[in-house]
Amino acid sequence: MTMDFQSYREERRELIDAALDKELPPETEPPAIIHRAMRYAIFPGGKRLRPLLTLAAAEAVGSDGLSTVPTQVDREVLPTACAFELIHAYSLIHDDLPALDNDDYRRGKLSSHKAFGEDIAILAGDALLTLAFELISRNGEEKGIEKSSIPIVIGEVARAVGTAGMIGGQVDDLQPQRNEITLVHLESIHHRKTGALLKVCLQAGAILGGGRQEEISILSRYGESIGLAFQIADDILDAQGEEKGKASYPALIGLEESRKRVKELTGKAKEEISSLRGEREVLEKIADSILERSLRT
Amino acid sequence: MTMDFQSYREERRELIDAALDKELPPETEPPAIIHRAMRYAIFPGGKRLRPLLTLAAAEAVGSDGLSTVPTQVDREVLPTACAFELIHAYSLIHDDLPALDNDDYRRGKLSSHKAFGEDIAILAGDALLTLAFELISRNGEEKGIEKSSIPIVIGEVARAVGTAGMIGGQVDDLQPQRNEITLVHLESIHHRKTGALLKVCLQAGAILGGGRQEEISILSRYGESIGLAFQIADDILDAQGEEKGKASYPALIGLEESRKRVKELTGKAKEEISSLRGEREVLEKIADSILERSLRT
Repeated sequence: MTMDFQSYREERRELIDAALDKELPPETEPPAIIHRAMRYAIFPGGKRLRPLLTLAAAEAVGSDGLSTVPTQVDREVLPTACAFELIHAYSLIHDDLPALDNDDYRRGKLSSHKAFGEDIAILAGDALLTLAFELISRNGEEKGIEKSSIPIVIGEVARAVGTAGMIGGQVDDLQPQRNEITLVHLESIHHRKTGALLKVCLQAGAILGGGRQEEISILSRYGESIGLAFQIADDILDAQGEEKGKASYPALIGLEESRKRVKELTGKAKEEISSLRGEREVLEKIADSILERSLRT
Repeated sequence: MTMDFQSYREERRELIDAALDKELPPETEPPAIIHRAMRYAIFPGGKRLRPLLTLAAAEAVGSDGLSTVPTQVDREVLPTACAFELIHAYSLIHDDLPALDNDDYRRGKLSSHKAFGEDIAILAGDALLTLAFELISRNGEEKGIEKSSIPIVIGEVARAVGTAGMIGGQVDDLQPQRNEITLVHLESIHHRKTGALLKVCLQAGAILGGGRQEEISILSRYGESIGLAFQIADDILDAQGEEKGKASYPALIGLEESRKRVKELTGKAKEEISSLRGEREVLEKIADSILERSLRT
């Protein structure tokens, strides 16, 4: 079957946005300012790539088949899918703070600390991370979910975003040795700062979707490849914008070599999933969309 | 049976400190600076009240009896007990930041951002919170623990330290209307900023220790009373130090009335547990120690 990927993405994005709106405390609930700040960091969102990966992984190991309209398994893993968007937003808020990257703007609007003050921005990040773990803990209440998988998922997520993963990558990215950075070191930062979260989105979707151990491993490896590819594509887009002087793939190996690397990695990702028994068309199209992203000028 | 409470505390503190040392990544593990910062915030610790409450609650619903030497149930709930110390340390690091309370010192040594810089302090707080959830997620691997209780505990902890609890209390404590603050509002801040975490320490110990629903409720109510009593006692100690001008019980109702309130609350806490079938001597002594704390000059 071939599907309309644009419609698929749009349908999933609507599902995810509605769930995020439901799970975040209302803006009017006291203390209102922190709930406003949390929603400010989540809406309006971008492509919701991380939740999308969780849904796509669950679909790939599930038996609902391929459909542009969300299926039962999508709804079942939705709380955890949303948790990943909260974690992503928390990491951006803290990364933008004056003590870290000191960015005044994010996605074309004021960064959280510019809009709400540093104090509220710090606490809003903390609150999004905390709420993420609450959402995953509640995912076991969904009918089709094996309750015993919840602590496993929480452990994997915590490791992926802790000092061995995302936070560790952020720490290394703070160090000022960017001029003499090697490709190996840059790749290690990318793997942890961006890749670890993307990988665990897939892993969690596969676990909660009831995947067998082999399927979970395949989807984790796919996640590792597209995670790095995504970050290199991001570097390429940045290189064409203003952020010069920052350590990046194009700065280290040039634009053409960077694009070649994205092509290799997305090809590898598609190769990884070739032995999956379930539907893999969506995962292939996600890999393709990352490749296309790297080719944009 | 009457026990030597000092020995009990000392034995538990050693158990907790050894477990914290085991669970925290080594200082030499890269990125070393964040692991150093995490350990800096945990060692040397204070009374380890929060983990102690978890152990005491588990003992109170368990069948191991009373002993100054740690029992089987203590070891079983130890990962979650440690998680509460990590959460406490995370909240202090973020609270001390220049954008929040701007405290240069904590427990007689430089606060984390003074020792490591604001960037690392923010990330070390994030990492401690993340590791806390990892520890609880792993607690189901302990032999005596009912695995299905883990998501329940994680949900309760996340709610207790989220915007309805600890973070919400921190947000309200930032607002500058301290001069016209009412006792009701101050109590609400105390309940959330300090009380919610202390309460969930007991709740988690009771759940993981295999307590029946009624026992969990009793220990939660006990936790609510000693949580508020503990914060008022803290206010009293602060009032005798330098921190004048800060909204506090002594500032609002005077020293003697504040002490009366601690006596009432610790009395109520002891009353709450009077119907517990298990050992309650330790919980009574903890309540007494909070009362004594409020009487110190």
